[in-house]
Order: sequence, then structure tokens, then C-alpha cells
Amino acid sequence: MNNFIDYKNAVADYINQINFNKNPKELYEPIGYIANLGGKRLRPLLTLFAAEVFGAAPNEAIHAAVAIELFHNFSLIHDDIMDDAPLRRGEKTVHEKWNLNTGILSGDAMLILAYQYFENYEPAIFKDLAKLFSKTALEVCEGQQLDINFETRNNVSIPEYIKMIDYKTAVLVGAALEMGAIVAKTTPSNKEAIYNFGRHLGIAFQLQDDYLDAFGETATFGKQIGGDILENKKTYLYLKTLENASEEDKKELVKWYATKENSQEKIDSVKQLFIKTNATGDMQLLIEEYTQKALQQLETLEIAYHFKEELKEFAVSLMSRTV
Amino acid sequence: MNNFIDYKNAVADYINQINFNKNPKELYEPIGYIANLGGKRLRPLLTLFAAEVFGAAPNEAIHAAVAIELFHNFSLIHDDIMDDAPLRRGEKTVHEKWNLNTGILSGDAMLILAYQYFENYEPAIFKDLAKLFSKTALEVCEGQQLDINFETRNNVSIPEYIKMIDYKTAVLVGAALEMGAIVAKTTPSNKEAIYNFGRHLGIAFQLQDDYLDAFGETATFGKQIGGDILENKKTYLYLKTLENASEEDKKELVKWYATKENSQEKIDSVKQLFIKTNATGDMQLLIEEYTQKALQQLETLEIAYHFKEELKEFAVSLMSRTV
Repeated sequence: MNNFIDYKNAVADYINQINFNKNPKELYEPIGYIANLGGKRLRPLLTLFAAEVFGAAPNEAIHAAVAIELFHNFSLIHDDIMDDAPLRRGEKTVHEKWNLNTGILSGDAMLILAYQYFENYEPAIFKDLAKLFSKTALEVCEGQQLDINFETRNNVSIPEYIKMIDYKTAVLVGAALEMGAIVAKTTPSNKEAIYNFGRHLGIAFQLQDDYLDAFGETATFGKQIGGDILENKKTYLYLKTLENASEEDKKELVKWYATKENSQEKIDSVKQLFIKTNATGDMQLLIEEYTQKALQQLETLEIAYHFKEELKEFAVSLMSRTV
Repeated sequence: MNNFIDYKNAVADYINQINFNKNPKELYEPIGYIANLGGKRLRPLLTLFAAEVFGAAPNEAIHAAVAIELFHNFSLIHDDIMDDAPLRRGEKTVHEKWNLNTGILSGDAMLILAYQYFENYEPAIFKDLAKLFSKTALEVCEGQQLDINFETRNNVSIPEYIKMIDYKTAVLVGAALEMGAIVAKTTPSNKEAIYNFGRHLGIAFQLQDDYLDAFGETATFGKQIGGDILENKKTYLYLKTLENASEEDKKELVKWYATKENSQEKIDSVKQLFIKTNATGDMQLLIEEYTQKALQQLETLEIAYHFKEELKEFAVSLMSRTV
């Protein structure tokens, strides 16, 4: 898996050399700012990996990889406005550092810039990439809208929740992988399988992320443990606890989620309910289920055996992370 | 010029039959709302016209025409947020009727939807259209940023002002025409000439719009005469008056523009200064200059003579309008 470091460096190098020092600077400075905040850059790395898996030089996919990363950053700028978030990756969000209008307009420009990176490909590939990109981008908007709707709804079902994280997060993981496959000009069935691999894995990943938010290790996870609980976020753990709980436990959970209390007691009490009702156990099973669904996709792939092993290894390492 | 009514109807019919009744409805309802507010729909009409001029059936260009119109509507949603505008075409703006987050997210989705309409074309045409679209869309963002910057700047030059209206308005008129030319697969020199025709005409059109805002006829122009003056907008008339005026007149203009007074006296006094300093006369000359630049482009076009006459007739009628 040494390649992953190479991929990450290739993406970082490419983004570092993009000239964001353009006029009007009020428009381009915020774009350069968020693009260079870093982050895991998991998605573009997957694009390069997929290109290699399907027989292309990873570098051929670099433009598509960067488009995916710029799109992801665009969505962060606009989501941070909608969520009224002050910080992103430990630094001020764009609308906080500048202002609301800058956040809106720079975000718009960043979305358009993302499309422009596909122009590096010949027309047939360009069309396949842009088509997948538009479809996915629209789904990400739909996922964000569902997330907003859920804040004020009290009857969110678990299938609805899964659909929300699928659209908001997982489809972009699938698309990132499929773009590598498109650049490598592989077969339609390979494209479909790698897309589904990424999408199922993306759902597992997001569920794992929600789990770690409550049960991860503070020192390594990098954010406050229990943040979702303090924000009364209706995650899988919350919804499943409501489903599994006795009337009494349900009342207690609803009571905690009706407060805006910022206490360790709230975090600890809610976590106890998550465990007591076995929502945590059910969640582990569901994560395992989506991981298995992802791995099944690998069976249909027509690629070298060692690449299947590497994709599997990647999936497993992603799911066994504690950070 | 009978065709124009046909073109307009074709665009209206196509937009009417788009299904905006999709889920999540919170995302798609506002898109349907603004798309169906109507407006002049000048840009998509030009796309169909250009397709016909260069030998295609106008209907072949309908998808590109609708993409242009949806993009224009996207930019209105986001601009209205940035300008804090309560009304658009006499109806509530999206962020007023719904809320800020809806305005941001529906706008994003509408921009992506616009790109999807190009998918109706084969790869080579798709790429040419999407490339021109991205370039133009980015320029529109830059124009909007320049417009925002000008609000708080006191040293805007007339060339800077022209650049702002060029990017914010004129490039999209040029692109609308060139898209018709792209669909019709005409020569590169024809594409370039029709783009420049539209761009110069777009600048003339926007200057005319600014002129009519102060000197149009209320009954027919459809908005309050003098609106720009009451908002202290630094239009060409303002900037040219500052340039031409005596120290005394300059002081008076600056004094009026320092107030937030909403009076007929302010409108009348400022208009007197516009006339007295001959900013109005200079503006008419500039509009004429850009109209002539546009018409010169027609000379190089390799098309049937009667189409040149129709394009000329269109340009002249646009410039002689009083509404």
C-alpha cells in the first residue's frame, strides 16, 4: 500500500502548483485558502488508485482527481454556511474569515473550476466524466437537503438516514473511483462494480465516522468526542436507540436531546443508552454488512489478483480505523 | 423577425415541460419557481436564432438554450442573496420566499442542472459547449465580484466599470449566440464573430439599461425610474458625471450619493447633473460605439445576406428600445 503515499503526494503537489493568485483576488483567495487547508484527501487518492487498478498510469487521472477534491471543497464552503460552522480543519471557515457573500460566490466559482479540470481529457472521456460528476453533484445537493430536513423532523426512519449519508457522502466516493476507471477506459461492468464498491464502502465509512464521534479516542480522533450528541444530531445511534429502547429509556434519550446542555454528563448518559439498547451492536453489524457488500463487488472485477487484494486491504484498514 | 416569437415559445414550452416536481421538494420547488417566473428570456432565444443563422434547425439548439437560461436563473438566485433583494420580476426572491439556505442550495443544484442539458449532444459538441459555458460562468462570477467590490470603492474608473458589465452581463450574451453556432458546427471564424457580436451588443445593452433606469418611461420600463440613483449605484452616468463635472457639481453629486434619501428631489437633481455635465451625451456616444463594434462583426460572417440583415435589425431594435 506504499502507493497511497505517492498518490497523496501527487495530489498535494498538483494542488500546490495551482495558481489561485488571480483577479479579482476577493474571489480567488478563499478558493486557494480552502484548497490548501489539506484534509485527508481520500477521494482524489481513490481516483488515482482506480486508474492504476484498471491499467492506466495514475497520473493520467490527476485532473479528474483534483476536480473531485475541488468539488468536495466547494461543498464544504457552502455546507459550512448552512450549518453556521465557525471552524473547518481547525481553521476559520470561509464565511467566517471573509463574509457570507464571499462564501457563496467563491463556492460557486470553485464548483465551476472543478468542471474545468475535466477539459484536460478528450471529448468522449470528458463527457463520461462530466456526466458522472453532474449526476453525483446533484445527489450531494439532495443529500445535504435531506440532512437539513432531518434537523426539524422527528420521524426520520433508518432507511431515510442511510439514504441521506449515501447521497451526501457515499456517492462521491463511488464516483471518485469510477472516474479513475473511466480514464483507464475499462469495461462497463468494471466501472459499475468499482462504483458500487466505493458507494457501499462510503456508507460503511460514514457510519464508522458517526460511531467514532461517540466512541473514538479523543487524542487520535482529532475532534471532541460526543460532539454529535451535544449538537443533538439524529445519527444512526440515536435513531436505532429510539427504535430499540424501552419507553423509559426512550423518554430519557428524548429528554437529553431536548436540552442544549454542554456537559460530560449528557455525553456519558446518552452513550450509556446507546450501549444499553444495543444500538452500538446493531451499528457494528450494519457497518460490517456494508463492508461485505463492498467487498462482494470485488469478485466481479476483471483485474489482477494483487489489485483485488489491495482494494480489500484498503477497505479493511479503513473500517478498522479508530481515528 | 417573426421567428423570435417562435423561438420564445419554443423556450417557454421546453421549460414548462421540465419536471421540477422531484424529491426532496425543498430543493426542487424553488428551482421550478424561478424558472417559471418568466422574464425576457433573451439569451436562450439568441441561441436558437444563432443555430438557424448558421444552418441548423433552431430546435437542435434548444437544450443549450435552456442550459443558458437555467444558468442565468441560478445567478439571479445567488445575486439576489448577495444584494439582499426582496423582489425579482415582481415576485418574492427565493431566499425571501424560503430562506437563505434554500437559496444557496437550490442555486447550486440549478447550476449543476444547467450543465446536464448539454448531455443531449454528442461528445465533441458537448465538450465545446461545456467548455464555453464554464469559461463564461467563471467570468460572470468575476463580474459579480467586481460589482461587489465597486460598492465600497471610491475610485472606480470607467474602463473598470465597462469590464464589470462585460463580465457580469455581456459575455453570457456572446456565449448564448456562440452556443447556437457550436450546435450548427459552423467555422471557427463564424463562431468568434458571432461571440464578439453578442459581447459588444451586450455591453451596449447593459449601458442602455442603465440609461433607461434614469431616463426611461415609468409606464413602459416596468421599474421605478431613478432606482439606481436612490441606491447610489456607481453606474456609467455617475462615473462620467464625476469625470466631466466642475468642482462644484462634483461636490453636489457626491453629497447626494452620500445620503440614503428616497426623494424625487434627489432623482431630479442628480439627473440634472447627468445632463448638465453631458454624461448623458457621452453615454449615447458610447452605446453607439459598442453597437457599431457589434455590427462590424457581421461583416466577417459567412452567412446568407438576409440573416445579416436580421441580426442587424435585431441589434438596432434592441438599442432603440425605450423600455
